[in-house]
Amino acid sequence: MSTSNLIGNLKERRETMRNKEVLEKFLNPKSVAVIGVSKDFSSISGKPLKNLIRHHYKGAIYPVNPRYDEIGGITCYPSILNVPGEIDVALIAVSQARIMQIFEECKQKSVKHLILFGAGFAEAGEEGRILQEKLLEEAKRANMHLLGPNCIGLLNAKESIPLGFSTSFETDKGFVTGNVGFASQSGALGFSLFGIAQEENIGFSYIVNTGNQIDIHTLDCMEYMLEDEDTTVVCGYLESIPDGNMLINLAERSKQLKKPLVLLKAGRSELGKQAAMSHTASLTGSEQAFQAIAKQYGVITANDIDDMIDAMKIFSRGKLANGNRVVTISNSGAAGIAMADYSEELGLELVTLSKETEEKIKQVIPPYGSAMNPVDITAQALKEQHIFIDTLKIVIDDPGIDAIIVQTTFGGELGKKICEKIAEIDKTTDKPIIVTVTGSKEITGHGKAYLEEKGVPVYTTSYKTMVALKRLVEFSLACKDTEKNEIHHAITYQIEFPESGVWTEEKVKQILAEMNIRVPKGTVIKSKEQLEKVKDTLSFPVVCKVISDDILHKTDAGGVKVNIRNPQELQKSYEDLMNSVKKFSPTAKMTCVLVEEMIQEEGVEMFIGIKDDPDFGSLIVCGLGGVFIEILNDISIRKTPISINEAHQMLKELKGYALLEGVRGSVKRDIQALAEAIVQISNFAHTNEGKMKEMDINPIWVFQEGKGIAALDGMIVWKE
Amino acid sequence: MSTSNLIGNLKERRETMRNKEVLEKFLNPKSVAVIGVSKDFSSISGKPLKNLIRHHYKGAIYPVNPRYDEIGGITCYPSILNVPGEIDVALIAVSQARIMQIFEECKQKSVKHLILFGAGFAEAGEEGRILQEKLLEEAKRANMHLLGPNCIGLLNAKESIPLGFSTSFETDKGFVTGNVGFASQSGALGFSLFGIAQEENIGFSYIVNTGNQIDIHTLDCMEYMLEDEDTTVVCGYLESIPDGNMLINLAERSKQLKKPLVLLKAGRSELGKQAAMSHTASLTGSEQAFQAIAKQYGVITANDIDDMIDAMKIFSRGKLANGNRVVTISNSGAAGIAMADYSEELGLELVTLSKETEEKIKQVIPPYGSAMNPVDITAQALKEQHIFIDTLKIVIDDPGIDAIIVQTTFGGELGKKICEKIAEIDKTTDKPIIVTVTGSKEITGHGKAYLEEKGVPVYTTSYKTMVALKRLVEFSLACKDTEKNEIHHAITYQIEFPESGVWTEEKVKQILAEMNIRVPKGTVIKSKEQLEKVKDTLSFPVVCKVISDDILHKTDAGGVKVNIRNPQELQKSYEDLMNSVKKFSPTAKMTCVLVEEMIQEEGVEMFIGIKDDPDFGSLIVCGLGGVFIEILNDISIRKTPISINEAHQMLKELKGYALLEGVRGSVKRDIQALAEAIVQISNFAHTNEGKMKEMDINPIWVFQEGKGIAALDGMIVWKE
Repeated sequence: MSTSNLIGNLKERRETMRNKEVLEKFLNPKSVAVIGVSKDFSSISGKPLKNLIRHHYKGAIYPVNPRYDEIGGITCYPSILNVPGEIDVALIAVSQARIMQIFEECKQKSVKHLILFGAGFAEAGEEGRILQEKLLEEAKRANMHLLGPNCIGLLNAKESIPLGFSTSFETDKGFVTGNVGFASQSGALGFSLFGIAQEENIGFSYIVNTGNQIDIHTLDCMEYMLEDEDTTVVCGYLESIPDGNMLINLAERSKQLKKPLVLLKAGRSELGKQAAMSHTASLTGSEQAFQAIAKQYGVITANDIDDMIDAMKIFSRGKLANGNRVVTISNSGAAGIAMADYSEELGLELVTLSKETEEKIKQVIPPYGSAMNPVDITAQALKEQHIFIDTLKIVIDDPGIDAIIVQTTFGGELGKKICEKIAEIDKTTDKPIIVTVTGSKEITGHGKAYLEEKGVPVYTTSYKTMVALKRLVEFSLACKDTEKNEIHHAITYQIEFPESGVWTEEKVKQILAEMNIRVPKGTVIKSKEQLEKVKDTLSFPVVCKVISDDILHKTDAGGVKVNIRNPQELQKSYEDLMNSVKKFSPTAKMTCVLVEEMIQEEGVEMFIGIKDDPDFGSLIVCGLGGVFIEILNDISIRKTPISINEAHQMLKELKGYALLEGVRGSVKRDIQALAEAIVQISNFAHTNEGKMKEMDINPIWVFQEGKGIAALDGMIVWKE
Repeated sequence: MSTSNLIGNLKERRETMRNKEVLEKFLNPKSVAVIGVSKDFSSISGKPLKNLIRHHYKGAIYPVNPRYDEIGGITCYPSILNVPGEIDVALIAVSQARIMQIFEECKQKSVKHLILFGAGFAEAGEEGRILQEKLLEEAKRANMHLLGPNCIGLLNAKESIPLGFSTSFETDKGFVTGNVGFASQSGALGFSLFGIAQEENIGFSYIVNTGNQIDIHTLDCMEYMLEDEDTTVVCGYLESIPDGNMLINLAERSKQLKKPLVLLKAGRSELGKQAAMSHTASLTGSEQAFQAIAKQYGVITANDIDDMIDAMKIFSRGKLANGNRVVTISNSGAAGIAMADYSEELGLELVTLSKETEEKIKQVIPPYGSAMNPVDITAQALKEQHIFIDTLKIVIDDPGIDAIIVQTTFGGELGKKICEKIAEIDKTTDKPIIVTVTGSKEITGHGKAYLEEKGVPVYTTSYKTMVALKRLVEFSLACKDTEKNEIHHAITYQIEFPESGVWTEEKVKQILAEMNIRVPKGTVIKSKEQLEKVKDTLSFPVVCKVISDDILHKTDAGGVKVNIRNPQELQKSYEDLMNSVKKFSPTAKMTCVLVEEMIQEEGVEMFIGIKDDPDFGSLIVCGLGGVFIEILNDISIRKTPISINEAHQMLKELKGYALLEGVRGSVKRDIQALAEAIVQISNFAHTNEGKMKEMDINPIWVFQEGKGIAALDGMIVWKE
């Protein structure tokens, strides 16, 4: 690791520490002021106080409003400056017009942590944006920390501290506490999700709504939660990525800690992006890049609220899977068929049971059941509950099985008893057991609730169950893969800054050659005289190409001649090139002509590219040429640098991968050489990150196995 | 319409009538016997009686069991032969061993309708299969009708008549009745689904479980429900297609009646198919064919139980949409973004509002809201409810909008009031209004329940809402499309039966030429002497191909020579062909050599094929050649015959369609000529349905627009 990286890490570490302290205070205040409080407890400015009272907040509460002396038996102060004690967190429920004045008072009172509920900032237009920026600037100067504006607040569920006006706080049942932390950019969506999840018995540690997130953002909160020992599942709703590198670091940390990150990212469509801009004034990054990064770093993504709740449920159980070999046990043949369908669709392996395990199961189930996977233990299992339990024990003991799905439609008292037994067995094994109980709440609700209480993941339908398991397997494997994907990153080919403008083929090929990526042997010809000198020394056939900074697409300019068979033809080609290029672009500076050997082996055409993404920096992209890229947009994306293992993974993701493997009698290609080139180029891009804007190696020909590859053309665009 | 078709329709009509009478009796019996009844009301043989009593069945009940004199105050008879009155339906709860005896007694007593609960038939092995077949044969002979065996029974929800032992019948609340009919091959899955749907206030007319469906099958039930005036949504769970043609007829009828068919089809995966065979002993048809048929005929397919319930909900409202132009109104920007994402993903058009509509909305909503689609009316709408209502009215009045999505996170009393107003407005318009209320049951449950009661479709999450709308739009357009897709089917080229064996290129090209599909001009050469005669009359270059019934793949046998430029080369090629084919297959009967003009225009390569599907008969398949078929399996499938409109649709579905449209500067192809050829071949296949097993026209070259197509090779396999 380089020194600069070490310094970077130390800096990050300090940031984390600061972040930890700040969020610690927001989430665990000893005293709270509510500024602009209202006596109307049904109003937005009344609810925060009401919620503190309702949930028996143990710290000091200071309502602030010059119009009242007391509210709900608590002394009310005309200004925060009149409050006698120290204030850890101020909840600010005043209109946007009064915000600067209140801020000043907070500053005077040395209140360091402010939650700003009000709207009317950047999301409302230019004026609001300016106000918001001023606020942030002042806060930074005074070392004050802001949550919001345009936010609903937060909840420390562990300590039952609600700071805000969410309807979800208006429950008299108390909160279901647990190991799920959740940061949400949207308040309405975030707390609705929270409310629904609570009803499914999913326990939370914290939930924070960041709103316009001018200071504290979703990833800050997620970082805090990741390091919090009571939180083991860290979820986020994002409309934009506040910091791409931070997200990647969190993802890496999440795998170290084996605590999954689950993200619901909105603003994926073009339309969605427009809406995002006018909503929280946030720019949405490219969805394709985000999905690639999530996959690469083992971040779990969800499609909607219910999908995220499903993910929370499976991960909050805390078990991981050793692999994707699944067995399903059900009392209904139909459910078994459905699960077989879904497992095939999702890429889970409905494992073929060993003869031994099959025999053991046969001893236990009725003769008209099925001891093959999907195992059908029949409805008889309702009465003879040992059938369920014994079958479960048999598959737990089979080391060839990584996860167990149990499906029942059983309800009533007997159904509940089975659930009790499943929960009991679940405790005795590290193997994930996931349950589907299909049926109405009236009939199967008791059993389900029991499982939920005991932390056994339970879903109502098979598809959701299989999706949950799929996610669990993916995260488990991502945690394991961390070692396999270790990157051996040689820092070479560092380009001195400032490089700017465009590098054309000739220069790019020099660099590629230095990386040991084969390029055609070539000579740069700068004049007729030089041509005269070398033309008899070349081995024909050759290719001629114009090299000019002013011509990016040589073919369009008539700047390429192929299959030149002898010195005479070469002479003529040289002249033709000169003429056609001059005709195409009279002002183009033609620097030279590149004369190259014409590679005659037949190769599969690929491209490798680099793109500087505004969120995530240097991304490497690869794909097959022809219809795959032009019609099917068939590409793989990763953040640089990548391991050789990941390079292979990238290629395998391509729809056209079969073409590299050799399909229908055609030869297998040198995939290893191609993967190595991808790693080299990714290293090069990573080393020069921040300087390079785009890079395009296109085409790369991939020859048959053992024969390597060759890069035939290339271009780099540097940042200005 | 041909006479044979008319006769077919009359026959179908009679079948329908019979079917109607039979199911009418099963669903509305005036008297019911329960044979093998038990006093233990928690047992499978006790529950059916208990359920009749619980739901106050108004007809006569005759328990039959020699061990009791009465059960629950009702006289019990030793045998059905002792029952004094007539019996409309007998519920048979005896073991498989006693089934034939009981059947005989029913026959003697003239009981025509039997529901067989017991398992141990075809699903349990060969012995059971034989018993099941015997039972069916006897029943047919005696004009008796069987539901089951291996089934849970049925429910006439309208009349509160439960005939069976489903746990879902054990409710004291009564059934939510309505316009959804549901036939399910699986009992466990079917009644679980029913139970969950009931809790979401979805009202049913009938639900029937068909089990092993040896006599009455799922499609029989669906046909009955389709014609039932109280049923307007007809759903089915199928593990196999009992009758492909019947399904297609039902689908056509469903569009005429504007009553959607919704199917959940299991056994899609290879694994699922195996499970299906060992479960209800049913063969699962090819999933690809099923999905193509569903799409072609406007059948809605669901992925799992909850997905089907979502579909039931939207369709039970009964409104259709005029198109796919959608507006979304929400009080949360995040929800608007999410809906924009989903609508793009699902192909719904989030329409750009007219200036006029936008202005009107601006007058109504707060300044920090958004009058652009997705419309954000902000949280202010909770207090000022007119904002919601006025905006809703504005978009209802805009003829440029086909459907309206309303999203709220509002709960409590105010939230409920908004729901009340939405329900009120929903009644005043034919435009579909679909609501998302996101939040916990505790907080938003009242509002949701109110909407459900009033029949307004309401979902908890945006994705489900958008999927529901997508389905509604698809079905609405399918109903409209019926006319556009009218098929002008000329019965020509009817091949006399019996044709058998294989037709090779030469014969197939004759047929294609008769259909006005261009084939290369050619001459069949049967001997050296004949070659001598014609060789100077040909226009070169030409292609030579071996024609032999014994050689299906000419290229493999060295049986093709191209680019033959003159009579001398032709002579040599002829001899070469003879030799290489004799070497490849010494016993092959070589009938002749086809000498053809060599088409020199460059064309995009396509294939068109026919496949005889066991469920649906003659299917037409098309696709592009090269990687599209070999690597991507990129094909379109339809049942023959098809309209020209559908032929175009087939092509548009192909991933490689852009290649026909002309991509990146390449020319546009003669898509119309290709579509016409597809229609011709589909007509040919349809006319000869039942005789043809396979047909392959491959390759077909598609030239540039206006230049037509040419079929270069072909083969037909006839059934023996």
